[in-house]
Amino acid sequence: MHDLEYPYEVTSLIKKAVRWFSASPPRTLLLGFSFIIFLGALLLSLPISSVSGQTMSFIDALFTSTSATCVTGLVLFDTGAYFSTFGHWVILLLIQIGGIGFMTMATLFALILRRRISLKERLILQESLNQGSIEGLVRLVRKVIFYALALETVGAILYTIRFSIDMPLGRAMYHGVFHSISIFNNAGFDLSGDFTSFSKYSSDLYMNIVSMGLIILGGFGFIVLADLFDWKKKWKFSLHTKVVLSVSAALIVVGALIILIFEFTNSRSIGEEGFGQKVLMSFFQSVTTRSGGVTTVDITEFRQATQFFIIILMFIGASPGSTGGGIKTTTFAVLVGAVLAMIRGKEDVVLFRLRLAQERVYKAVTVTLFCIGIVLLGTLVLSTTEDAAFLKILFEATSAFGTVGLSMGLTGDLTLAGKLTIIFLMFIGRLGPLTLTYALGPKPGRVLYRHAEGKIIIG
Amino acid sequence: MHDLEYPYEVTSLIKKAVRWFSASPPRTLLLGFSFIIFLGALLLSLPISSVSGQTMSFIDALFTSTSATCVTGLVLFDTGAYFSTFGHWVILLLIQIGGIGFMTMATLFALILRRRISLKERLILQESLNQGSIEGLVRLVRKVIFYALALETVGAILYTIRFSIDMPLGRAMYHGVFHSISIFNNAGFDLSGDFTSFSKYSSDLYMNIVSMGLIILGGFGFIVLADLFDWKKKWKFSLHTKVVLSVSAALIVVGALIILIFEFTNSRSIGEEGFGQKVLMSFFQSVTTRSGGVTTVDITEFRQATQFFIIILMFIGASPGSTGGGIKTTTFAVLVGAVLAMIRGKEDVVLFRLRLAQERVYKAVTVTLFCIGIVLLGTLVLSTTEDAAFLKILFEATSAFGTVGLSMGLTGDLTLAGKLTIIFLMFIGRLGPLTLTYALGPKPGRVLYRHAEGKIIIG
Ligand SMILES: [K+]
Ligand SMILES: [K+]
Repeated sequence: MHDLEYPYEVTSLIKKAVRWFSASPPRTLLLGFSFIIFLGALLLSLPISSVSGQTMSFIDALFTSTSATCVTGLVLFDTGAYFSTFGHWVILLLIQIGGIGFMTMATLFALILRRRISLKERLILQESLNQGSIEGLVRLVRKVIFYALALETVGAILYTIRFSIDMPLGRAMYHGVFHSISIFNNAGFDLSGDFTSFSKYSSDLYMNIVSMGLIILGGFGFIVLADLFDWKKKWKFSLHTKVVLSVSAALIVVGALIILIFEFTNSRSIGEEGFGQKVLMSFFQSVTTRSGGVTTVDITEFRQATQFFIIILMFIGASPGSTGGGIKTTTFAVLVGAVLAMIRGKEDVVLFRLRLAQERVYKAVTVTLFCIGIVLLGTLVLSTTEDAAFLKILFEATSAFGTVGLSMGLTGDLTLAGKLTIIFLMFIGRLGPLTLTYALGPKPGRVLYRHAEGKIIIG
Repeated sequence: MHDLEYPYEVTSLIKKAVRWFSASPPRTLLLGFSFIIFLGALLLSLPISSVSGQTMSFIDALFTSTSATCVTGLVLFDTGAYFSTFGHWVILLLIQIGGIGFMTMATLFALILRRRISLKERLILQESLNQGSIEGLVRLVRKVIFYALALETVGAILYTIRFSIDMPLGRAMYHGVFHSISIFNNAGFDLSGDFTSFSKYSSDLYMNIVSMGLIILGGFGFIVLADLFDWKKKWKFSLHTKVVLSVSAALIVVGALIILIFEFTNSRSIGEEGFGQKVLMSFFQSVTTRSGGVTTVDITEFRQATQFFIIILMFIGASPGSTGGGIKTTTFAVLVGAVLAMIRGKEDVVLFRLRLAQERVYKAVTVTLFCIGIVLLGTLVLSTTEDAAFLKILFEATSAFGTVGLSMGLTGDLTLAGKLTIIFLMFIGRLGPLTLTYALGPKPGRVLYRHAEGKIIIG
């Protein structure tokens, strides 16, 4: 009797699973990403994906596919040397789906799919996007894709120009397209070879500017990009855009300054360089922690204090609905605002003269704490499975969670359990803050006459 | 003219300072503690305080005085060998003032001094303390001191019995009193010599039980002690007591279990011992992270994963209004409750069938995040000033902030800037969470028909 019931039970289980996953948009997102990652892993494990025609072990393929889809950039194999052109295109496709797909989904979430979102709030967001109605959604998705492709095309051309000096035009174009997509999507994959990342271009001002520009623009998120593109029409920015722009700028400048100070006399990193070069390298390093993942310096040679500081920058990450990860610049702004309010003895968190709802502050604090918990848990697990210095482990865990892709060299030495942990961290780091934020929906606020309430997107 | 105004300006400045500090109880607490610490430092720097008749440098005396007053237990000098009997009594007095004084103040805060506390809330707390009226405050303070002295006396007798086997009765009593006060107040100072802490007694069941008992009872906090002592009168515990007891028990058991598993095969720590001994040492180590600071094992010999796990335990710490530090067991309970609520998709955090006000949850999350921020900042500063492994630095910073007093050996090597940083961490670790919690006063809740609301003290 029991045997007969078995198929029915399985069907029922599958039905239940399908129902569970389609019950809410975040679940659909989780399922969709998982599906793409597994498909990518299957393709990357095929002999056709490697130059040598070897079959990659499934765990390594899964690691690479997760790293690409979650636009992280931690790599077990040298992307340029190991993978065939087919392999490269699979990786690029995964990056593109992971980058633009997530960007679109996050924007959609912010606009309409969030539960308990008020009509007023929705209208504010739509207004800031110049979207007249909910029917404009398809237009919105097309807009996201258009912006991304436009910026990637510009990036590809600029890169190709530079690469054509070093290599034949065909190859330069190939490298141009690959790096533009990888860098704009903050994916951190590169074809430089020997895991050297962009260290070859450390003193190339042109390459530095193009790369920093792509990382920064990709890390702003669609809402900010739309606001920037439409600036001339409106002559003013939304609070969200103002916060993203100012916090990003502050993080980059302060980050570069502290890296510069900490490393100024370190001859193993930037100490031997001229002053201008020191500044350039510090800036690039600061920008790449936003979630870029390419680097022009060997991070292992940095001082411990700098490495720890980079960990904190990586944890903060890029902006909501962007190609970058971390707890997000807006969340960080709310935290700073909350601390300032506390010090001044004020109850309200005020950004740009707009008060934030208590619920948003609570959400920011909760998301941050949850993310810290995940990174610490990942670090604890890794410190039992890996035999490496603690800071190296903490760096790797934070880099994976923040989908940054910088590494102090642990990636290549990972054990099986370590690889699984990093895969988990990359996945939850990419999807966690967003889904968590929308799980913690805003609650109706109390009516009090204070500053006008401002809206900001967190996570 | 300007010269004539000078004395007036100074007087006005002092007046302003006095007004500022007396404006709120937390400020009075900060000022009082600072005063005691400086006075203690002056006394400890005198030649009479040392066996050799040397004058201690003020920074070292300040470090020792802060460590004693903030009941931390990080020491630069071997307490037994360096300090004279006079020095020991100064340290004991600082510990006693720091321990009981803080306990009283924290309880008073919880009872009456907190601004915006509702009458109902106050009555609930008073009820749980069997305090009939606000006039019962003097009785309350006497009760706190009575409980502390009673438990310390019992501890002193139990210790003296054991020490009298090893040394003459007079010396045994001296050691008995010193260690009872130090251990009950979770101060972590010991007279064992050579920085060996209690490793000599690692297999002494009697010493283990007495010490663990004192650490645990001291770490419960006065409200729980009062509830426990009055148990027979009421036959039920307050929510606060239930949470403290269950979380403390869970942390100790789970902590011991994980330490046991992580260290089971580590021959440099507990790996060579018999099973019973392994369990005993794991339990002691788990208990001492509540804030005790004495240890029966050399922590530097632990595996990295265990050391990191101990850092997390130290950060959680003991219970509110106790002799221990950290973010507190109740705060941790609220965090766990919040995560569970989130996973279950529930809006309310429920502990023992009582719902917590959203404001309390917000407070717990904020306090935790603030504390993480302080520890990370301290770690960042230390990693620029100290030349040591990162984990060692993180361990020291967390131990100082959690007023635990365990060390991986950095204390003795600290630079001047390092000492100042640790002093700051001990001070803010002892007073920060409490004052922060009362700065973040509860706001009037919305009226909704849900679970009955439960009260719990955080920080
Ligand atoms: K990346
Ligand atoms: K202690």
